[in-house]
Amino acid sequence: MSAVRACYWNGVAVDQVPAEARALHYGDGVFRTLLQRDGEIIALDRHLARLGDDAAAIGLDRPDPALLAAELAPLRTLGDATLKLLLSRGAAGRGYRPSTSRADRLLLAYDAPPRSAAEAVEGIAAIRSPVTLAAQPRLAGIKHLNRLEQVLASRDWPEGVAEAILGDDRGQPVCATRANLFWVRHGVLHTPALDRCGVAGVTRDRVLAEAAALGLDCRIASQPWAQLLAADEAFLSGSLIGIWPLARLDDHAYPTARPLTRRLQQRLAHPSNVHLLELR
Amino acid sequence: MSAVRACYWNGVAVDQVPAEARALHYGDGVFRTLLQRDGEIIALDRHLARLGDDAAAIGLDRPDPALLAAELAPLRTLGDATLKLLLSRGAAGRGYRPSTSRADRLLLAYDAPPRSAAEAVEGIAAIRSPVTLAAQPRLAGIKHLNRLEQVLASRDWPEGVAEAILGDDRGQPVCATRANLFWVRHGVLHTPALDRCGVAGVTRDRVLAEAAALGLDCRIASQPWAQLLAADEAFLSGSLIGIWPLARLDDHAYPTARPLTRRLQQRLAHPSNVHLLELR
Repeated sequence: MSAVRACYWNGVAVDQVPAEARALHYGDGVFRTLLQRDGEIIALDRHLARLGDDAAAIGLDRPDPALLAAELAPLRTLGDATLKLLLSRGAAGRGYRPSTSRADRLLLAYDAPPRSAAEAVEGIAAIRSPVTLAAQPRLAGIKHLNRLEQVLASRDWPEGVAEAILGDDRGQPVCATRANLFWVRHGVLHTPALDRCGVAGVTRDRVLAEAAALGLDCRIASQPWAQLLAADEAFLSGSLIGIWPLARLDDHAYPTARPLTRRLQQRLAHPSNVHLLELR
Repeated sequence: MSAVRACYWNGVAVDQVPAEARALHYGDGVFRTLLQRDGEIIALDRHLARLGDDAAAIGLDRPDPALLAAELAPLRTLGDATLKLLLSRGAAGRGYRPSTSRADRLLLAYDAPPRSAAEAVEGIAAIRSPVTLAAQPRLAGIKHLNRLEQVLASRDWPEGVAEAILGDDRGQPVCATRANLFWVRHGVLHTPALDRCGVAGVTRDRVLAEAAALGLDCRIASQPWAQLLAADEAFLSGSLIGIWPLARLDDHAYPTARPLTRRLQQRLAHPSNVHLLELR
């Protein structure tokens, strides 16, 4: 875990935030995690659009994308960085009831993950999390700040495990703690629906768009764990990781041939997977 | 909504907190809301014990009650106050995975609610919230910082409405946004089980203890809304309010004779209900 390299509150460099921030008291806000490579943020426009959608979904004003872009610009000098952009509803005293739809902006910069991730080539081992995601259709898909389920599901991983897949209360896999889930069977790309729980990542959208461009059949639906285990290929997507193949899920090993995963990695051209392109 | 009168972080007077606090990023913490009257905190020991239990339930160290009591002591000079005591897991970089079980302590003081609340005598009007509580047995009962459901359920109340009752995904009432729920039928006291969702308040425990001392039959169980509507009496409990009778729930008016509610108010002797004792 890396230290904070820069921190801004509403565009002003700080290292502290107001004690009344509603993100702190209620998780009343939304966020995005961004990957910056060589001063360029991957899929920035998509992230800012989704941040606005998520803000609106919990009754916050959509932030001005031009303002956010202007506040992100000074961080380009960091070159490579992981950026976290968080909106916290404005506070005015105690109590759950919101007094405003205005949000404060917290921007944090950390080190970027390594450029050349072996995980993108070799795949990772994941476990099926003992934590089940609660079904809350009003908050499903939104990258909000109520993330205790992910905190609980990130503990106690066995040695060598890089992610945990969480299921829902109907016995269906939904997503990983920090990534969305896909699998391929008989040439069809599958990813769980996120209308009851889970977070809809920007990279998930990008994968679906690339799959459509390849002419792949895509199915967005909640399905039993058995379908995930019967897959020919399975992978995770995320803004920092790009695409990571699933090599193992608990005791189950996936085939090491991953033709569609590899094609999607190549098309996505995510900088964390880019060495794969060089291997083409 | 009242302004902050005092604010301490780990015992030091501040008005800001570290931008890395995990309460801010993930709601990774727990809290209690306390009522101080004339320098005395109501049911302090119970609150500190419950805070410790809730901390342990999400993998945080139990705070030292003696340390917390020492940090609360200087606030006695405020006389009457609402105090909020919040634990936020210690931070060390980005990511869901907790790196420590150590918690930072945030203590905030606000104005107290009015001493003589008409609501305690006349009762309040509540609505059935359109927000359904998600079922998450791992977090049920815990007063943690993931409170977006309560934020959403606190919006858009009609004029004159003082609370919203939230139900679960099985069509059963659970609790109000800031209070626990009780009702009386045929002389039996009922309150919903909190093993799938909801927050277990200290005042709920105290009400159950007083009911037991009165020899009342108590039933702790999830039941349909129809049971709440068929009740002879219904009331809410909370640390700030003591006991507030329910006068109305949506279009349904409860009987104005509330013999058991009144007896429990008298026994609880909560300072926000104490004028009732004077009317005895």
